[in-house]
Amino acid sequence: MVKTSQALSHEMDIEEDWIERASGVYSRYYVDFNNGENALLLGTQAANLAVKDSNIKLEDIDCIIGACGSPLQAIPCNASLFQRELGLENSGVSCFDVDTTCYSFPLAVFIAPTLIQLNVYNKILIISSDAPSPTLETAEREVRALFGDGAAAVVVSKTPEGEKSKVHHFKLNTYSNGADLTSIKGAGTLRHPNHSETKPEDNVFQMDGKKVYKLALKYLKPFLKELERESKIINSNYKYIVPHQTSKNGMKIFYKHGFAVDRVANHLTNHGNCIAASIPMVLHDYIKEEKIKRGDKILLFGTSAGLSLGALSLTY
Amino acid sequence: MVKTSQALSHEMDIEEDWIERASGVYSRYYVDFNNGENALLLGTQAANLAVKDSNIKLEDIDCIIGACGSPLQAIPCNASLFQRELGLENSGVSCFDVDTTCYSFPLAVFIAPTLIQLNVYNKILIISSDAPSPTLETAEREVRALFGDGAAAVVVSKTPEGEKSKVHHFKLNTYSNGADLTSIKGAGTLRHPNHSETKPEDNVFQMDGKKVYKLALKYLKPFLKELERESKIINSNYKYIVPHQTSKNGMKIFYKHGFAVDRVANHLTNHGNCIAASIPMVLHDYIKEEKIKRGDKILLFGTSAGLSLGALSLTY
Repeated sequence: MVKTSQALSHEMDIEEDWIERASGVYSRYYVDFNNGENALLLGTQAANLAVKDSNIKLEDIDCIIGACGSPLQAIPCNASLFQRELGLENSGVSCFDVDTTCYSFPLAVFIAPTLIQLNVYNKILIISSDAPSPTLETAEREVRALFGDGAAAVVVSKTPEGEKSKVHHFKLNTYSNGADLTSIKGAGTLRHPNHSETKPEDNVFQMDGKKVYKLALKYLKPFLKELERESKIINSNYKYIVPHQTSKNGMKIFYKHGFAVDRVANHLTNHGNCIAASIPMVLHDYIKEEKIKRGDKILLFGTSAGLSLGALSLTY
Repeated sequence: MVKTSQALSHEMDIEEDWIERASGVYSRYYVDFNNGENALLLGTQAANLAVKDSNIKLEDIDCIIGACGSPLQAIPCNASLFQRELGLENSGVSCFDVDTTCYSFPLAVFIAPTLIQLNVYNKILIISSDAPSPTLETAEREVRALFGDGAAAVVVSKTPEGEKSKVHHFKLNTYSNGADLTSIKGAGTLRHPNHSETKPEDNVFQMDGKKVYKLALKYLKPFLKELERESKIINSNYKYIVPHQTSKNGMKIFYKHGFAVDRVANHLTNHGNCIAASIPMVLHDYIKEEKIKRGDKILLFGTSAGLSLGALSLTY
């Protein structure tokens, strides 16, 4: 369901326009958690649509990679739970997750073709799904203002003859001096949910938005320069940069670094930040709107908790 | 610290020899959680030893893969937290996790060389660390009897000239009809720690040992047959099978399937089941004891929550 910032501001008992001003988000989608909607359902629906759009059958999939920003449950991996929801529970189809929080999707898109080239798999289903909304009520207002629920999925297979689809370059730089700036400190073995000293706030996302912004800004310029040098593709050659939808200010960074506003894929205003699902969701929208077409060079860029900066340069 | 099954049986108020009979575990190691020991510390120590054993410097590492069975905290990824503990917090070294629970280590060992071949990285540090002990007090007795804490790490780099190290084949079959048989249902967005309906038992590992055993047994025979056919390596050609240390009965399965007792790497009796750390820990022991030497063919085999069966065939 759509949750407008206006409605949310009433629930949060804050000024009506504070959320829009602070985050740039006018509305986002929330699952109806108490009626059985959650990240598992969203991811499964996205996966079914991706398979349909690829003109293949579910049975053609031979690997499922979970590329989410948050676990559905601690054990087993998300991919395995998606496999069951898809009705493939007796198939033996390989299931595993990759995780670098908000940048998990491009990481999976980078790994998948290498496994296809090695003839380990033919058709890999990548699912990114995050539904933080049921936990947001207890989060800080900056966090609550920003996040939404969403999912997207893709099928990766061999490039058909005559097409140019290709991964050009992958780059992931992690600076864990920023590990505490965006984190959920609980829900693992360090601050276990059952431990007497674990507090409820340990179990929700915490963010020092200003410090993250400052740190990301510090690393971004050399990162983009190195990327150009290593990939031998100058940034102006990308039709679109498809960035993680961090926040209004997070998106503005790119405009300062040589990406024209109309070349930065953006749907923050009506989706918010959907963690790992953001990049594939915007990508999906831009493909559906035919802004991104086969043969276009695009750059999947993201900052993520870690703190990581990631870039995947590819021809769609 | 060492926790003997005898001491544990007194704490659990059960017959002195029940644990040995049921699990095959005589002792296991527990972290001293209240004095700052945990999976983060164990993994960091293992990583430092792996780097030292590899005769390289920490600064030579250009990627860290977390390959644990349980998260240290929900966000960011384990690898990022290890990076910080290793003092590499300003290095920019890539950090991400891979997860298929107990089989995460071989999955990482399979992915790492493909990234090195692509010249993305030179030296990849893989860390597997799990310390479930602080959560076991509230777990069922079958679970409590079985698990221990542990960590191991390896450095993957290009095969030196004249050596034969090579990955031959990777196989991972997931049957999510067994997803509920070994699980932690909580600690994610489906049963969030702060949700009023989440129970303490949702946050600990639950296992239906008999059903897992039965299901694994059903899938094992065809799995091993397919593995032989696909890899073109007959099982008798492996010097050792290095299996996940599931349980006494779990280890016996291999004897029934043509692996002689002395070719099945085993340290269950004095380590228990250390989740994702088990396979690299036994591997480490067998390398240190010179049972496994450069040029030996080995098979890293594991059943894991999912339910998955995995095999990585390689020359060490």
